[in-house]
Amino acid sequence: MQGAILAVGNELIRGQVFNTTSFWAARELLACGYTIKEILTVPDEKDLIIKRLKEFLEAYNFCLVSGGLGPTTDDITNEAVAAALGRPLVVNEEMVRRIKEREQALNIPHNPLRLRMAELPEGAVLLTNERAMAGYYLKIGEKILFCLPGVPQEFRHLLKTRVLALLEDFLPPSEVIRHRLFKFFGLREADINLKLKEIEDAFPEVSLGYYPVLPEIHVSVLVKAANEQKADEIFSLVRERLEREFGVYIFGYDDDLLEAVIGRLLLERHETLAVAESCTGGLIASRITRIPGSSAYFERGVVTYSNQAKKEILGVPEEALQKYGAVSEPVALAMAEGVRRLARTDYGLSVTGIAGPTGGSPEKPVGTVWIGFSCKEGTVARCFLFPGDRHMVQAYAAETALDWLRRYLRYGTLVPRYQFTCRG
Amino acid sequence: MQGAILAVGNELIRGQVFNTTSFWAARELLACGYTIKEILTVPDEKDLIIKRLKEFLEAYNFCLVSGGLGPTTDDITNEAVAAALGRPLVVNEEMVRRIKEREQALNIPHNPLRLRMAELPEGAVLLTNERAMAGYYLKIGEKILFCLPGVPQEFRHLLKTRVLALLEDFLPPSEVIRHRLFKFFGLREADINLKLKEIEDAFPEVSLGYYPVLPEIHVSVLVKAANEQKADEIFSLVRERLEREFGVYIFGYDDDLLEAVIGRLLLERHETLAVAESCTGGLIASRITRIPGSSAYFERGVVTYSNQAKKEILGVPEEALQKYGAVSEPVALAMAEGVRRLARTDYGLSVTGIAGPTGGSPEKPVGTVWIGFSCKEGTVARCFLFPGDRHMVQAYAAETALDWLRRYLRYGTLVPRYQFTCRG
Repeated sequence: MQGAILAVGNELIRGQVFNTTSFWAARELLACGYTIKEILTVPDEKDLIIKRLKEFLEAYNFCLVSGGLGPTTDDITNEAVAAALGRPLVVNEEMVRRIKEREQALNIPHNPLRLRMAELPEGAVLLTNERAMAGYYLKIGEKILFCLPGVPQEFRHLLKTRVLALLEDFLPPSEVIRHRLFKFFGLREADINLKLKEIEDAFPEVSLGYYPVLPEIHVSVLVKAANEQKADEIFSLVRERLEREFGVYIFGYDDDLLEAVIGRLLLERHETLAVAESCTGGLIASRITRIPGSSAYFERGVVTYSNQAKKEILGVPEEALQKYGAVSEPVALAMAEGVRRLARTDYGLSVTGIAGPTGGSPEKPVGTVWIGFSCKEGTVARCFLFPGDRHMVQAYAAETALDWLRRYLRYGTLVPRYQFTCRG
Repeated sequence: MQGAILAVGNELIRGQVFNTTSFWAARELLACGYTIKEILTVPDEKDLIIKRLKEFLEAYNFCLVSGGLGPTTDDITNEAVAAALGRPLVVNEEMVRRIKEREQALNIPHNPLRLRMAELPEGAVLLTNERAMAGYYLKIGEKILFCLPGVPQEFRHLLKTRVLALLEDFLPPSEVIRHRLFKFFGLREADINLKLKEIEDAFPEVSLGYYPVLPEIHVSVLVKAANEQKADEIFSLVRERLEREFGVYIFGYDDDLLEAVIGRLLLERHETLAVAESCTGGLIASRITRIPGSSAYFERGVVTYSNQAKKEILGVPEEALQKYGAVSEPVALAMAEGVRRLARTDYGLSVTGIAGPTGGSPEKPVGTVWIGFSCKEGTVARCFLFPGDRHMVQAYAAETALDWLRRYLRYGTLVPRYQFTCRG
């Protein structure tokens, strides 16, 4: 079952708004067994829309159009669809009622122009009775055309709640799909790629996608099979294989965030955390606290950017700063141990490094970062040399610190092995 | 001068990687006077690529193809381009040399498959001599076709450094374009929209785009004129009008970040900053420290998530916490004043609030946030009620605190007026 997506809008084609919604839709559709063959963005130009719509309906089983359903004169999707299908525009009384109701509810004067939104191609069936701008679908023989509002939230809501179900009714997929994202951290690209190739060669039903979303690596597993049982069976085999090969490096699946995984582990264990950051500048604390409920396990964070702050807030000894410098093992240890002791938490994490672009030296080049980890077993620190620009060094440092805690919580590893570890 | 963009790749059409690069390119091209009429994404399928390429080269002055230039059997762009143009594939000796050099430099064994990358359509001119995967262009009569690598960084680099200059040489734009993004914070949508409509009605050469990138609002100003002088003249008039109407609410232009604007102002004044955060959880410190050189003006941040931390690190009186609660004027004042005093900085910012989803009450619903500002003139605090979910409340709170500092640095306003201010 193949389809195309046509997104209409001057703001999209001008690059003023990036059309990410169509790509999100393609991913959702694929997970339900529908293959998208073309994703096209065009301006608010009737002739072009008509031309491409005709082609897509000719070539594919279904088509999704987004945008251009509003009341202004720029909004020409309804007219273009009617013209492409050779059907007249007909006033939809249900839409008229909703538009008038909405004007009354919002206490805005009736504007007859708004009724343009109610002139839909003959045969249009509204997708929902919840909203004024509902979107609609049209059956054209065996094929189906969906017209959805361009506003991302509305589009996503209707796709999830209505479009996927209608597709399944009208165009049941010929294959069963299983799709999952495996999220990795801490492995080299080459280490992963070689194994993935082996898995793909072993299972012809499986497509693996390798996506560096640095500092993480995401691997998408797509299984296509003739029936549910076969799909589940193959998916399980691939999953077991991935977990056997990569085990501790897989921190989560699909929408999992590393900071949310850590949060769940800390909650389960009724344990608490404090962090002391220098070069990551609050990034770790900020990631932890974007998770709802993090106040149950996150006690405090300090961003000790200056040496003075390291001494005053964390009790880092002046001597260590003088003798070894702020980016050093003794300072990382003192920060992790200090923040854990002062906050009376189960864990303390610390980061001190040179994010760049300036501040590097031959002995401590940009990217040099010491990370400290403190728990009841003791306090340890390791040196890393992270690649990339300031943002990338900060992102790698924060991710490594958070993953270190995950590895300890999950496997009890006091000093995990990581990519980019250096002698320090 | 009109063009189309064709992005090739299974990972794109499956929605595993969102194709934002094409939209970025459309924006860059528009700013140079080139209009994109279609942005199409297709899978690695030769026949479909050939068909659309032919159409685009027929309909438009130029076409940009991205992706599919690599060495694997999936990479079929070169073959498709050759077939679409009816030209043979020819071995490009320069490419062969670069591939072999790269193999030697990386010390990897020679793989003859990699030489597929050197088989280019007859007439292809390499875009750069810096890299192995160079991209190329082809002249077809008056028209021009660019083939670029799909890797976003490579694509962007080549577009900026080579493609725009070549287009200007071969297809000089017929109109002069001025394009600028104006970045607003702190105004209501309705306040902006009405004025924009007036401006657009007054200047037929101007298209204004209104884009809520919450909590900011971005307004794009696009001027098309027959010559440079006219374009600059109209752009100046619109700019003056916008600055007269909205003045203090415009914090920057184009790629400006609010935290970078503040950084420049603090540097100019040789002044320093410390922040004390509760519900924003390090977001403010993290935004400030992502700017290179921020250590010159940022002394420390503290994320006092627990009441204990507020007392211990900032000296917030136990009494204030007991009597008024952590989300209150006295606590916001004590945090801002405390962090400024302890860090001995010129400015102190504080945020304490209820980001949700839990923790709200009838008197202090989710979204209630107190922000404190401390400077040599004194310490003040104001209460806000921000809309949206946890992330949005955190984003609004951080943005408001940062903008408050900007308004003071730029205009000396001790207590600026903001949207979402409440009685508290």
